[in-house]
Amino acid sequence: MIKLVLFDLDNTLYPTSKQVKKCRESAIKAMIKRGLPGSEKELEIKLNCIIKKLGSNNEKHLNTLVKQTKIEKNKHNAIISAGVTAYHITKQRIMKTYPDTKKTLDELKKRKITIGILTQGVTIKQWDKINRLGLYKYFNENVWVVSDEQSKKEAIKEILKKYPIKKEEIIIVGDRLDTDIKTANETGLISVQILQGPYADKKEDNIKPDHTIKKLKEITGILNKKTLNKKQ
Amino acid sequence: MIKLVLFDLDNTLYPTSKQVKKCRESAIKAMIKRGLPGSEKELEIKLNCIIKKLGSNNEKHLNTLVKQTKIEKNKHNAIISAGVTAYHITKQRIMKTYPDTKKTLDELKKRKITIGILTQGVTIKQWDKINRLGLYKYFNENVWVVSDEQSKKEAIKEILKKYPIKKEEIIIVGDRLDTDIKTANETGLISVQILQGPYADKKEDNIKPDHTIKKLKEITGILNKKTLNKKQ
Repeated sequence: MIKLVLFDLDNTLYPTSKQVKKCRESAIKAMIKRGLPGSEKELEIKLNCIIKKLGSNNEKHLNTLVKQTKIEKNKHNAIISAGVTAYHITKQRIMKTYPDTKKTLDELKKRKITIGILTQGVTIKQWDKINRLGLYKYFNENVWVVSDEQSKKEAIKEILKKYPIKKEEIIIVGDRLDTDIKTANETGLISVQILQGPYADKKEDNIKPDHTIKKLKEITGILNKKTLNKKQ
Repeated sequence: MIKLVLFDLDNTLYPTSKQVKKCRESAIKAMIKRGLPGSEKELEIKLNCIIKKLGSNNEKHLNTLVKQTKIEKNKHNAIISAGVTAYHITKQRIMKTYPDTKKTLDELKKRKITIGILTQGVTIKQWDKINRLGLYKYFNENVWVVSDEQSKKEAIKEILKKYPIKKEEIIIVGDRLDTDIKTANETGLISVQILQGPYADKKEDNIKPDHTIKKLKEITGILNKKTLNKKQ
């Protein structure tokens, strides 16, 4: 029987990539309005290249975009800041979980299943998302924000110490084969891939989830299965 | 005749200190709700001491506050982040100029007087305030964000180069004797102290403004005066 379900956060509990895309679009529109040359489409492509190069947690995406143009230097701050402000205002306005997230979490709690979040990223940023999404009340202290794969495994060790629970009683739900599912498989937990967001179609050699779902609410169906042993 | 009015931003165009106080109160309330021990009043005093010690632009105020308590370390991030999120949500909700700010700026523009912002602080933060307050359209490129007194003087030199204008045709309006008024006096511009915010009652030996006003809209009265020479 499953006693603990550990959820990934981004693109699992809320549509991160879709919402971040909207924030970036707002940023680009605001920057164009303030004098940044180029079309929305063109600047979006440029920005995506910069993000790929610098990594998604770098703070200098918009600076780099503006520096690549021929805009005079004394106008840079006005333009960059227009993008930053628009990004954050949009974020506050649109940040929401998937429609079935909270209902599903309620249902699991009703079934007395312990739930947790195991997410990789910048600690304060991941926590800010949890707060803004109104998810804290579902998870309380069962949140583990880690910076890399190794610390994800250490968090799992910590969880196994914290709860009198066996590996086969724990499910990890996440959208990414190369992180969530890999860690679950390597640590002997049951892995469920949710086919949402930009990683839904990506394949990885040798990394297969034990189960797949298309929407979070389908997790209850998995819990209803009689046998839930790992395939591998 | 006055041709250019340079406004300070914080506590001159909007009630910075009052709004920041509200944001901090929201942060403290959210942190208490998440388990931070202490009363609102007590934590506010502690936080103010920390801010005084670390400086207002330090990013670690709430971290330091939480570290001073006996809360177990694994709860720190949940509590700190609750404060950070509440702070920013409140900021977005309440950030507004003084009731007479925009009307006054409109009036100056109608009189064909050039207006600018000369403010000291962290560039991206000051620009974010200008954007959120909807002030950009009044000032466009006439914004100078400087980091210290020396660069304030350099900005004034730059302004004098940019505009075919004499020193006695420029007014600096600000709330602080030790920064705004001091710089204006030392560079030979006309100084107007606005008696708003926490610096309204502070005295400084040897720093006297040429004029004082209680509300921004009174600046038009100053402009109507026939002689506007510096007193000193």
